[in-house]
Amino acid sequence: MRELPLSKVYQLLEPGPVVLLTTARGGRANVMAMSWHMMVEFEPSQVACVVSGNNYSFAALRSAGECVIAVPARKLAAKLVQVGNCSGRDIDKFAAFGLTKLPAARVAPPLVGECFANLECRVTDRGFVNKYNLFILEVVKAWVDPAQKNPKTIHHRGYGTFVVDGPTIKLKSRMR
Amino acid sequence: MRELPLSKVYQLLEPGPVVLLTTARGGRANVMAMSWHMMVEFEPSQVACVVSGNNYSFAALRSAGECVIAVPARKLAAKLVQVGNCSGRDIDKFAAFGLTKLPAARVAPPLVGECFANLECRVTDRGFVNKYNLFILEVVKAWVDPAQKNPKTIHHRGYGTFVVDGPTIKLKSRMR
Repeated sequence: MRELPLSKVYQLLEPGPVVLLTTARGGRANVMAMSWHMMVEFEPSQVACVVSGNNYSFAALRSAGECVIAVPARKLAAKLVQVGNCSGRDIDKFAAFGLTKLPAARVAPPLVGECFANLECRVTDRGFVNKYNLFILEVVKAWVDPAQKNPKTIHHRGYGTFVVDGPTIKLKSRMR
Repeated sequence: MRELPLSKVYQLLEPGPVVLLTTARGGRANVMAMSWHMMVEFEPSQVACVVSGNNYSFAALRSAGECVIAVPARKLAAKLVQVGNCSGRDIDKFAAFGLTKLPAARVAPPLVGECFANLECRVTDRGFVNKYNLFILEVVKAWVDPAQKNPKTIHHRGYGTFVVDGPTIKLKSRMR
């Protein structure tokens, strides 16, 4: 994995890919699928996400205050759905679906080796957790896999329907 | 425009398209481009978004507490960038770029006639506005244009680069 400047994190999350979220609690790692996330600030690199209280990851994220957001490309679509269809309460999803835990540099939850990008995050604000299950995260370290060229991300449309990235277009824009 | 059940709004926003955000203040409508948004709850249909304090729309959204999120398809990409490259402080963007204002049913800001979906929203929580420019919205009415079949949405990757929806894939999922 190659380090990515934190100022470029938004280029990964802003287009709205489904991501994996890893947590760790009592020495045990877990992973879930997540689409409810958005950028909040460029620098420091802040992200908001909503994790349902029904998800086993919720308690781990709230108590440990750390996670990794891992971005899968199209080839991981089937595993992504498997991850989303079961709970870490019942099984070790990394083992069950052949996902590789790599050590993160600054947080306890693992990176996902098969993902083309991994963002190490700390919860910096729990002020909206009780009301909306909304966490404010700061990305403290970011990694990309240089071996995955032009990865196509996956976007959730509900009930097992996903749209995969298509053509890229370039337009003269002053927007960062 | 055909009405869309509010329980389906997430299927539009969850995949992370760039959207247009319309506001109205003192009888004058404005429109901006926005990518920092996410779903917060299915029902009631709640959305979070971040609008920079540098944007002319910020004050209108904060004071009037209403907006429309309009979702453009690929054919609007060039106009979308034009909207993003200038400020409503200086010009009437609807007139300048040939965007059609249609009356909304429940809020003052207009729908955008050329967009394939329009979501009428009210600000329901300003608790994170001062700290993060983050607004909690409730979608109170949603519309889709039945004449636009299988619209391809646009996703911002930064600096004028956008990725357009590609193929749709279906996988057996228990995830809503």
